[in-house]
Amino acid sequence: MSTDPPAVTLGVDFGTLSGRALVVAVDDGRELGSAVHDYTHAVLDRALPDGQRLPPGWALQLPQDWRDVLRLAVPRALRDAGVRPEQVIGVATDFTACTVLPTTRGGTPLCELPGFADRPHAYPKLWRHHAAQPEADLIVRRAEESGQPWLARYGGRISSEWQFAKALQVLREDPAVYHAADRWIEAADWIVWQLTGAENRNLCTAGYKGIRQDGTYPDRAFLASLDPDFAGFTAKLDHPLSPLGAPAGRLGAAAAALTGLCEGTVVAVGNVDAHVTSAAARALDPGHLLAIMGTSTCHIMNSDVLAEVPGMCGVVRDGVVPGLWGYEAGQSGVGDILAWAVRTTTPPAYAAEAAERGLSPHELLADKAAAQEVGAHGLLALDWHSGNRSVLVDHHLSGLIVGLTLDTRPEDVYRALIEATAFGTRTIIEAFDTAGVPVTEFTAAGGLLRNPFLMQVYSDVLGRPVNILASEQGPALGAAIHAAVAAGAHRDLRAASAAMGRLERHAYTPDPARTAAYDRLYAEYRALHDHFGRGGTAVMHRLRALRDRPPYRGTV
Amino acid sequence: MSTDPPAVTLGVDFGTLSGRALVVAVDDGRELGSAVHDYTHAVLDRALPDGQRLPPGWALQLPQDWRDVLRLAVPRALRDAGVRPEQVIGVATDFTACTVLPTTRGGTPLCELPGFADRPHAYPKLWRHHAAQPEADLIVRRAEESGQPWLARYGGRISSEWQFAKALQVLREDPAVYHAADRWIEAADWIVWQLTGAENRNLCTAGYKGIRQDGTYPDRAFLASLDPDFAGFTAKLDHPLSPLGAPAGRLGAAAAALTGLCEGTVVAVGNVDAHVTSAAARALDPGHLLAIMGTSTCHIMNSDVLAEVPGMCGVVRDGVVPGLWGYEAGQSGVGDILAWAVRTTTPPAYAAEAAERGLSPHELLADKAAAQEVGAHGLLALDWHSGNRSVLVDHHLSGLIVGLTLDTRPEDVYRALIEATAFGTRTIIEAFDTAGVPVTEFTAAGGLLRNPFLMQVYSDVLGRPVNILASEQGPALGAAIHAAVAAGAHRDLRAASAAMGRLERHAYTPDPARTAAYDRLYAEYRALHDHFGRGGTAVMHRLRALRDRPPYRGTV
Repeated sequence: MSTDPPAVTLGVDFGTLSGRALVVAVDDGRELGSAVHDYTHAVLDRALPDGQRLPPGWALQLPQDWRDVLRLAVPRALRDAGVRPEQVIGVATDFTACTVLPTTRGGTPLCELPGFADRPHAYPKLWRHHAAQPEADLIVRRAEESGQPWLARYGGRISSEWQFAKALQVLREDPAVYHAADRWIEAADWIVWQLTGAENRNLCTAGYKGIRQDGTYPDRAFLASLDPDFAGFTAKLDHPLSPLGAPAGRLGAAAAALTGLCEGTVVAVGNVDAHVTSAAARALDPGHLLAIMGTSTCHIMNSDVLAEVPGMCGVVRDGVVPGLWGYEAGQSGVGDILAWAVRTTTPPAYAAEAAERGLSPHELLADKAAAQEVGAHGLLALDWHSGNRSVLVDHHLSGLIVGLTLDTRPEDVYRALIEATAFGTRTIIEAFDTAGVPVTEFTAAGGLLRNPFLMQVYSDVLGRPVNILASEQGPALGAAIHAAVAAGAHRDLRAASAAMGRLERHAYTPDPARTAAYDRLYAEYRALHDHFGRGGTAVMHRLRALRDRPPYRGTV
Repeated sequence: MSTDPPAVTLGVDFGTLSGRALVVAVDDGRELGSAVHDYTHAVLDRALPDGQRLPPGWALQLPQDWRDVLRLAVPRALRDAGVRPEQVIGVATDFTACTVLPTTRGGTPLCELPGFADRPHAYPKLWRHHAAQPEADLIVRRAEESGQPWLARYGGRISSEWQFAKALQVLREDPAVYHAADRWIEAADWIVWQLTGAENRNLCTAGYKGIRQDGTYPDRAFLASLDPDFAGFTAKLDHPLSPLGAPAGRLGAAAAALTGLCEGTVVAVGNVDAHVTSAAARALDPGHLLAIMGTSTCHIMNSDVLAEVPGMCGVVRDGVVPGLWGYEAGQSGVGDILAWAVRTTTPPAYAAEAAERGLSPHELLADKAAAQEVGAHGLLALDWHSGNRSVLVDHHLSGLIVGLTLDTRPEDVYRALIEATAFGTRTIIEAFDTAGVPVTEFTAAGGLLRNPFLMQVYSDVLGRPVNILASEQGPALGAAIHAAVAAGAHRDLRAASAAMGRLERHAYTPDPARTAAYDRLYAEYRALHDHFGRGGTAVMHRLRALRDRPPYRGTV
């Protein structure tokens, strides 16, 4: 397989604020060069480019910002790698999801058509567009009423972030846009269309974001129960679905001119940033759970069995790798809870000490927290500041801290919050184990790898070794691996992942005594978890209701 | 009663870190002058004056520091008031309690005897000496076993701060000191002894701090069950008890020389700082509850009925004013919980804003918090950072906050903690009401009067007007009122209090709509209170045990 000059693939990762291109050698996965392009318009969450205000919860993007990643970052990555276009045997992309847009039959985004630029619903809706909650609630209610079999595949809940809720919002609020959209397509597939010139759709987003199960979408009767005009919605989605790692087509002349790559280069089927990272982390085998840990945490795991895991975000056949059931679960808040702690509980003296020692506030708090024995802070927290995605699936839960005393210091709270998120991960792992989908290997990826204290706490709390993805470019590397498979350089995804993935096994190992101590705290966590999350008390719901609808509109 | 020059009395208040003398006109209570003396040695909580280390939890003081208040502050107060000694018709003192010391039969503190200066147990034990907890636990256990009738008068609990626990600690740890002590006496009585030259003991400390009920102390059999050598302990206490407001004697020649007052001036019976404040606040009538709100809160109320109020600190016949039952209750943490919040949750940007606006951090947080509607922060807290004194009487409980989100700001936490302490006060008031000792009037005194936002929250949460003590020198003014009664300037304490006390009635009045909104939050507070404090879960106790005895002595 080794060649001189080496055969390479290109992985292009489309994130929330920027896109990055990574050049990877197909023989061993070594990263030869990369480039980043920050989206010019970032996220439109306050106004359209023309200044028109957007309501709360909205989050849009511009297709041109994505094209600019192809135009600018791809050639710069090739130059950075010192690689000629002829060496590139394949290209693959991954995208945030569900990021979805209305287009014409030819793939032109509606927002780029004359007469649509001032209509907010004509723009792509970013994954974190949260204004379709009423539509999501309606979908769940109607699905429960009519006993839709697919609902259990999503832990009993359809997210406001997904294709159906977002499309239904368009129909209700701007039917002209809805009816003008021939296609309703994931950005993950739309970007591939830009490269190959032909529509292509992937199994992953259709399953996790599009309610595609057992080969079909929800039927007309169900869709009509949401809105009579919604009955035919899936015509905007219908298209043969391509397996992950397959070629979607070849680079067209226009895309070759745009990117500087050779016309005819193989282009892989589209994919999702979290899911594609599994290939980068060699985490494709059944029972190998990958936790992508950042602001929030996304858990991806394959299995050869189908089971209903409480509160999972979705289970999709062939959803991560062909031939296996792909499971997704998540924790709504992890890194952002720690950021909240830093933001609100770092007193001036700590800020000064951090500056003096040349540490970030996180590093200072972690340093102080690491000097403690397990349980010595006397605290226990529930990590629900952003609600609970798995296993309770309740976004109106909230965070809790108990055990506070006058001696409680910021590092105590920081440590207790880290431990709470680790307990949350353990709860999810145990839910998989209990459902008959055992977790046999645990690997971490994402920005929180930069916090080694946190990683050690996870290993101790989970009582198992923690592997880490040994690349800072997980999604782009995963995409490059998919490209290598699509180009035929490796037999299949698992072989390519084994050759090109970057896993540091057992980077953290548990201390048995600390694990035993954490077992006692975890039992307390589960008791609080069930009391506040499973009906022992609904105080969190009532506090949320008071917050959102104060009973008295006067201050003091 | 009005004279020219006016007849005055002198109130001398012995606090934790300083003593202050206040000169007051006996006709209308106007404050003519004052002076403060900071104790040279403050609190000995780390070492004796000779450098000998003290164990954790110890807190001692030096009698000479108290004498210096008489020597320095009293004459300065007279000068400040422009008053001649002949105008002073009476002197009274109040003291922290239970602050207690071993002395000879003549009143010499053992620590001042040759050969005792290096023995820690020979020194006065300050009220917050907390090292006698094992002895307090033993007293409660034995009292429960033998069904001691007095236990219910103290809410089922004898504090480690009180006379018996502290004395038993001396016996167990330094029997030579115990046996050398002819007398075991409250500082409140010892200071009177210094003024008059003769031992005198007051009903208040004997009842609240000395387990004196229905005319007797615990009997020999009970005391022997604690330790055979403790059987005769009450011989060190026995002495006729004087009613509050009575004269204890007249100023002796030595004390006159020390203070610059006239020999023969009437000296009133000793008293406790919190209890004596009731006279200053005109809060002596049955059902009028006085809350002295500072670091912690002490509640004092008189009633003509005897009842068992859950978790009260004590009920003593004639304990505050002759002829009534005096009740004491308390909240372990109030101002110190808010200080903790400021210490740990004021980020640098807030500190900068406070500095820029010329506000203290408390003022800044209160200002921001006051702009909110009731319930808008979505939080609920339990105010148990220092445990719960009344009504649960459990010092191993801890603080809790629920409802946290990524949007939670420091002022939200600050407001929720203020509300929690107000809910704690409401819980105590309802316990009195339920026990058949209704609270008909509520008056606040103490340092937290400086926080008007907090006072308004209390009024809204309690749903009743809040009066305030309109003097910054509550205890000293109360003592001066007692001196006026002892000197015969008023008929009795209630008459003197009416003439000389300083009450601003209805300084804060509740907003009915806010009260209605708080009723809903209070119901949530009570539910959490009972779940965590009354056996729904013992998680707070288990977390405390883990904190104090970590199961694993290794860090990270």
